[in-house]
Amino acid sequence: MSSTFSFGDKLPGLVERIVESYGDEGRVQHIDRAFLPAPRQVEELIYRLVELMYPGFFGRQDLTRHNVSYHVGELLPRIGYLLHRQVEKCLCYRERLEGRSDGEKCTCCDAATEVTDRFINSLVEVRQMLSADVQAAYDGDPAALNCDEIVLAYPGLLAITVHRLAHELYKSDVPMLPRMMSEWAHRQTGVDIHPGARIGGSFFIDHGTGVVIGETTDIGDNVKVYQGVTLGALSFPRDERGQIIRGAKRHPTVEDDVTIYANAIILGGRTVLRKGCVIGGSVFLTSSVPEGATVAITPPALRMRDRSLEGKPREPEGGDFQI
Amino acid sequence: MSSTFSFGDKLPGLVERIVESYGDEGRVQHIDRAFLPAPRQVEELIYRLVELMYPGFFGRQDLTRHNVSYHVGELLPRIGYLLHRQVEKCLCYRERLEGRSDGEKCTCCDAATEVTDRFINSLVEVRQMLSADVQAAYDGDPAALNCDEIVLAYPGLLAITVHRLAHELYKSDVPMLPRMMSEWAHRQTGVDIHPGARIGGSFFIDHGTGVVIGETTDIGDNVKVYQGVTLGALSFPRDERGQIIRGAKRHPTVEDDVTIYANAIILGGRTVLRKGCVIGGSVFLTSSVPEGATVAITPPALRMRDRSLEGKPREPEGGDFQI
Amino acid sequence: MSSTFSFGDKLPGLVERIVESYGDEGRVQHIDRAFLPAPRQVEELIYRLVELMYPGFFGRQDLTRHNVSYHVGELLPRIGYLLHRQVEKCLCYRERLEGRSDGEKCTCCDAATEVTDRFINSLVEVRQMLSADVQAAYDGDPAALNCDEIVLAYPGLLAITVHRLAHELYKSDVPMLPRMMSEWAHRQTGVDIHPGARIGGSFFIDHGTGVVIGETTDIGDNVKVYQGVTLGALSFPRDERGQIIRGAKRHPTVEDDVTIYANAIILGGRTVLRKGCVIGGSVFLTSSVPEGATVAITPPALRMRDRSLEGKPREPEGGDFQI
Repeated sequence: MSSTFSFGDKLPGLVERIVESYGDEGRVQHIDRAFLPAPRQVEELIYRLVELMYPGFFGRQDLTRHNVSYHVGELLPRIGYLLHRQVEKCLCYRERLEGRSDGEKCTCCDAATEVTDRFINSLVEVRQMLSADVQAAYDGDPAALNCDEIVLAYPGLLAITVHRLAHELYKSDVPMLPRMMSEWAHRQTGVDIHPGARIGGSFFIDHGTGVVIGETTDIGDNVKVYQGVTLGALSFPRDERGQIIRGAKRHPTVEDDVTIYANAIILGGRTVLRKGCVIGGSVFLTSSVPEGATVAITPPALRMRDRSLEGKPREPEGGDFQI
Repeated sequence: MSSTFSFGDKLPGLVERIVESYGDEGRVQHIDRAFLPAPRQVEELIYRLVELMYPGFFGRQDLTRHNVSYHVGELLPRIGYLLHRQVEKCLCYRERLEGRSDGEKCTCCDAATEVTDRFINSLVEVRQMLSADVQAAYDGDPAALNCDEIVLAYPGLLAITVHRLAHELYKSDVPMLPRMMSEWAHRQTGVDIHPGARIGGSFFIDHGTGVVIGETTDIGDNVKVYQGVTLGALSFPRDERGQIIRGAKRHPTVEDDVTIYANAIILGGRTVLRKGCVIGGSVFLTSSVPEGATVAITPPALRMRDRSLEGKPREPEGGDFQI
Repeated sequence: MSSTFSFGDKLPGLVERIVESYGDEGRVQHIDRAFLPAPRQVEELIYRLVELMYPGFFGRQDLTRHNVSYHVGELLPRIGYLLHRQVEKCLCYRERLEGRSDGEKCTCCDAATEVTDRFINSLVEVRQMLSADVQAAYDGDPAALNCDEIVLAYPGLLAITVHRLAHELYKSDVPMLPRMMSEWAHRQTGVDIHPGARIGGSFFIDHGTGVVIGETTDIGDNVKVYQGVTLGALSFPRDERGQIIRGAKRHPTVEDDVTIYANAIILGGRTVLRKGCVIGGSVFLTSSVPEGATVAITPPALRMRDRSLEGKPREPEGGDFQI
């Protein structure tokens, strides 16, 4: 095997053809338009924030009461720098998109400073929320041996951590960045929480993979959600031209003390899961559930079949199981 | 705590025992057999291709009409080198496996050059497909604020991007590499599309986690798929010795303008979802659906239960809900 | 855009406020408490173990019978060092937590050496199990072209590989570390297997995303599981004070030759799937299934609807489909 490969004299032609195509498909290029947040920097920002939220767990682990101030004193300016830069990019991006900055003095740097300050000031409160989330996970999972294990290894906690941080930026009306943070968490954990979702205290997602929580979802306190649960839209309100109306309430409301078991799908902006109700695994719901009620699917039809003729197991065919 | 650990004089014995075991289990070693594609290089290839497809979004972001040619002129040879090398490895691997290269002159290097040229020439068309995919995502998701956000942060777009690239190599009959690319995307996004699947224009996967699209699936234009959807096999055709027949059509056909909601499972090579039909969330289907039809599951049984005796919510037991 | 950001003279106040909050929320800090396993080191340990299990596939690929001993001779001490260090940390962590090491001589280093030796000695047997798992994947998936592809690209194999390794440490009663290893695999593959689960030979998980296998699950030989399958708890046994009893059998038992199709949910510690039974896709089960039986959901209600009035597909509303 010999791997000497070169395009040779075809290179200029190939380059030209691709560069030309960039012009044709403007939707999938970002040339001559600055101010996009940088995915790698967003990732570093998240890592640093997680370090700050859970000191001694990630990154530097040998923290003591004597050295912790130096650690935070080093971490915080780095977070400030990264955050300010990305927020400014996002704000400038929107300005440019909406055509407002032509000729005017750009105020994005000042606005980014304001957002950054507000965000940093919210961190203590976010940590209190996360502390209650850790406790909720411990109370809700018999496999958890202690709270440290939850911080170190529970994907649901990582997802809610990034969500609570991204949600602060969403509340400050920062475009792009919160969604990029959420998607980073989605990639890591399989949990897809839109940064717009409002989530109360002591929230626990067990296992996590496949959970989807939509933008206009409202969740109360002490809610517990299992893997594969969707809190989604039933349909999209459209204007008279058939265009989707963005921003309308289209995801469910979940009141306090609700539990939703694996793979349940709850849809619609007028769907309310009232206080203390329990939604069973695999339930599909597009209507509200009264306080304290339990909803479950009917048990499956059971059928014996002699498979000795077939040799190997196969998926039972739906058509065979009419009852 | 002191961590000075060494195997001491036991090391040679331990090494010998493990090396010996390599001989016993040939299925899980690759010794004295060269020519495997290298996972890290495949990953770098994908990153570079994504940079090329979406200039200005990933990697270098400060592109202008003045510098973009230099950027592409640097990126393209790197892609050519990486791709050619991995394709050659894959082709040599198959030659060796099929015992054809004994004594004969190896033609894999030339064949890899041909594949690489064909692939590079397909990139403009692939970008056009991706541009339509971005538009489909924007049209289909009220939470999307603009197309840039979709490119930067939508896992469904990353999945279809890698799929469209891997599918080109699949069509060129390259073994191994397309599947490794797909699995990379699967790891990142939770979307598992076999590189053999044929997917038409303007395809949108929302949320994505848990989607599975099998090798012989055929998908038309303007199809929309939500998280957790499976387009899978109902059973595997077997030959007279009971061996699975590889390559037979065993996954569904999905015609134009079909929408499939979350967690629906559609199985079987003769299952056709005809033009414009809508498959509801959690539906399980092993038969075809007529044009324009809507399929939905029956709503769940609802049951109140006094849970004050139990203290805490629990999964409702199926046995309670016989109707 | 100018990105000169600094907290200026507000920095000391901000640092102080955050450090103070660390004291308030003890659950989410690890200060003045040493001995946590380090996530990055755990990740390196897993990479090295995967290299050792599948020589020539990952990391160094040019292995021959002549150089393989040097490779293993280099890899093994690194694994020993990493493993011993993390195990020792985990054992010291538990000692400290249970308050036993006050004044006593710490025996964790010696105990870690014992665990490390036992683990290294188990590796040959683990490789034999993995070899059978690879064969099971090949036999079970018509899309698999050869065993090498399965090792290189199947997420189910990566998940069971890490599980079998983590389970060895679980059996040696190492806290924290096995769970961190499992969660690493969960992040990579979407497959969440608790390290306590007992899994027999020739196990195959296809596609993988969304699979959850709980701590006290017992799985026999030749079991095949598809994406989205949950083997979970029905409810948690509680003591007289309402506290969850940790460690009780609460997940299903799956006997030999069982196949469980996509998105099926099987719950409960007394639920037994007996030899050779087949669980259809999307089935929800909280009771046992007899030997050789097939369980399937009833086929969905099918309904035509004229959607020309609505313009765009939407999720069918459950309420419409009462039968």
